[in-house]
This record gives sequence, structure tokens and C-alpha cells, in this order.
Amino acid sequence: MNDNHTKIDELKKIVKQFVDERDWGQFHNSKNLSMSIAIESAELMELFQWLTKKESKNAMMSGKLRDNAKDEIADIFIYLIAFCNQNNIDIKQAIDNKMAKNKKKYPVETFKGRF
Amino acid sequence: MNDNHTKIDELKKIVKQFVDERDWGQFHNSKNLSMSIAIESAELMELFQWLTKKESKNAMMSGKLRDNAKDEIADIFIYLIAFCNQNNIDIKQAIDNKMAKNKKKYPVETFKGRF
Amino acid sequence: MNDNHTKIDELKKIVKQFVDERDWGQFHNSKNLSMSIAIESAELMELFQWLTKKESKNAMMSGKLRDNAKDEIADIFIYLIAFCNQNNIDIKQAIDNKMAKNKKKYPVETFKGRF
Amino acid sequence: MNDNHTKIDELKKIVKQFVDERDWGQFHNSKNLSMSIAIESAELMELFQWLTKKESKNAMMSGKLRDNAKDEIADIFIYLIAFCNQNNIDIKQAIDNKMAKNKKKYPVETFKGRF
Repeated sequence: MNDNHTKIDELKKIVKQFVDERDWGQFHNSKNLSMSIAIESAELMELFQWLTKKESKNAMMSGKLRDNAKDEIADIFIYLIAFCNQNNIDIKQAIDNKMAKNKKKYPVETFKGRF
Repeated sequence: MNDNHTKIDELKKIVKQFVDERDWGQFHNSKNLSMSIAIESAELMELFQWLTKKESKNAMMSGKLRDNAKDEIADIFIYLIAFCNQNNIDIKQAIDNKMAKNKKKYPVETFKGRF
Repeated sequence: MNDNHTKIDELKKIVKQFVDERDWGQFHNSKNLSMSIAIESAELMELFQWLTKKESKNAMMSGKLRDNAKDEIADIFIYLIAFCNQNNIDIKQAIDNKMAKNKKKYPVETFKGRF
Repeated sequence: MNDNHTKIDELKKIVKQFVDERDWGQFHNSKNLSMSIAIESAELMELFQWLTKKESKNAMMSGKLRDNAKDEIADIFIYLIAFCNQNNIDIKQAIDNKMAKNKKKYPVETFKGRF
């Protein structure tokens, strides 16, 4: 796994370089990028649209659907990171702040095993 | 910025712990999580739905809309990471693989400044 | 059922009047409306996000979730119809044209009971 | 325009026959169909993703993008109607009920020309 030694900033730089080389920053306003994230999310969802829970699980073990899912996941990450680059958002801090809210909203004792 | 020293695995652990403590792994099959990612993406998009490009930009400078956008961005990251935890996906590798495809598909000389 | 005597144009007029009275046509460009349709679709999806197939079925029999689903369905219809009003699209003709393509793409003999 | 003489029930019958002939009712549970509606909505949105408001307007006048938009609009209608068929929902009544709520929520005097 690379994730145990890759820092978030490295991902940000990869995306920034790709966008800068193509001069695509001009299209990357927040409204457009929020649409891109939603569109790529729908493409991920499309892979599981007609599958049962069990079929989804088996299909994610290996093979074509798993490869496609990894590509769609990457696309969503790329646009999310482009959004954070564009708006100077610290991803770790955003996640920490939201997680603190989630912990208050869903205390373990009340929500263990259910919603 | 925390992103210059936080490793991706730390984000994965934060999400895993939250899910484990609540025993929510039982709901986190790939089909459900793909829906969650899409739903949170729509909530981000909702913030910019009726704004012009210029209004979006101004609203992201500071204030309430920027704070809400950071929370929605965090929610999408959290579900994406939960999906990767569930399916043992290396995020850095998935992004590298997809970026290699994107570079072939969109060569700089052809796509500079346009699609 | 009202659907056996209500013409599509009546729905178009209901939506047009609501929009005109509020002078909201200025916000109803195709890009914005396509976002609205997607956002309302996500709200429908949210109702079924964590439910199993069986739970979804039971919940749609009667009660609160069924009422909420009807409201979300109506919201999607309303924005779809606003899009057609804005762009002078004949709904029946659009459906007929697309259905003709679908029938060619999915011939009964090949796709009976499967995709 | 066909919409001035086509009743909503005719659309319902067109969709029902298509689904029945292929025995696809088994896949058409509410959860799956809510995903389908969201996926098709994202495909509509994709057409306008990188366009400005003015470019969207021009592109919808005639030509390829307009034709594609009509097909995507039809796909969303088809799945929405399939959802209503599956759950015995009267479309006119659902729209009337939601419109009554919208009128209360957005009184003309307060919301004329703004949100």
C-alpha cells in the first residue's frame, strides 16, 4: 500500500500539475467542479445499479468491475482535490471538523448498530 | 496546512475507527456507499445551484457558504474513504493509474485551454 | 386516479404559472435546471439509502416514507417539466423517440428477464 | 405538440408495456429505480457541465446537444414513471400536493424575482 507513506499534499500536487499543464483552471470554478464530482459519483453508482448486495460484494473481489470502480473512485478524488486546490481547503482539517460534528450527532451509545 | 504532513492512511484510520465504534460496517456495502457518495455530492452542488460563477467565487472567499462547502467536501471524502476501506483500495495507486489514463486521453498539446 | 384524464399540457401549465408568478424564469437556464433535477433525485435516493430491498418495499406501502417519496417524485417532475417548458420540448415525442431507440437496443428475445 | 392531447396514463402504459415485455419488473424495486433516476439526471447534467449559461442556451436551440438533452430528459421521465407504476402513484395528485406546499413556502409577495 502506498497510502501508508503518501501525504495528502502529494495528491494535491499531482492534480494541480495536471490542471495547470492544460490551463484548465479557467473551467474549475466551484459550481462546475461540484457538478463534476456529482457526475463522477453517478458513474460509480451505475456499476452497482442493478446488482444485489451479494452480487456487489462478489464483483468487488477482483476483475473488471473492481477495476472500473477504482477508476471511478479516482475520478471523484481528483475532482474533490481540484475543488480543495481551487479554494485553498485543508482536507485533513475539514475532515477533523466534520468528524467532531458527526461524533456529537451520532453518539456511540445511541447509534451502535443502527441509525 | 495539515495536508503537508498528514498521510492518507491517517484519514483511513479516522474513518475506520468511527465506523467500527458504531458497528456500521454492516451497512457499508459498495452499493449503499456509492449512493452515499452521490447523495453528499448533491448536497455540495446544492450550495451553488442558483449562483452565478462570480457569486460562487465570492461566496467561497469566507463565511457561511464556505463553511458549509467544507463540511460537504468532508462528507464526500469520508464516504469515499469508507468505500476504499471496505474494498481494500490503495487511494494513491488508484489515482496514479487513472491519471496515467487521463494523460493519454488528454495530451497537453491538443487540450491546452480547451476540451 | 387523475392520471387517466389529465393531459401533459395541464402539468406544463401548472409549472409555468408557478414560475411566472415568481419571475423565476431568469434562474431557469438549462444548466441550473439540470442541477436541480439531479439534486431532487438525490433527495429521493436518500430515502432508500440504508434500506434493504424488502424494507424499501414495505416502507412504500403507506406512511411517512411513502408520503416523502411522493413529494420528492413531484419535485423531480416539476423541474423536468420546467426544463421542457424553458426549451420548448414535447414530452410525449421525446419519450416516443427514446423508446424507439430502447426497443432496438434491448430486443425482447435477448433481454427477457436479464440485462 | 402531442402534449396538448396526450394523457399521463398513456405515458404510464408505454413504460409499463416496455418493462413487462422484458420481465424487468423484478429489478424495478424503489431503491434501484431511485438510483436509475439519479444516474440519468447526472447524464443530463454532463451535457452542460463545462458550458457557460450563454453557451448552454445557444446549444439548446438546435442540433446535437439539444437532441441528446431530449433523450436524457426522456430517460429520466421513463424511470420516474416506472417508479410511479411500481408504487401506484398518481402523478397529477403528487404534483398538486407538492405545488400546494411550494405555494405556501414561497409566497409570491416575498419571493418575486428572488429566493
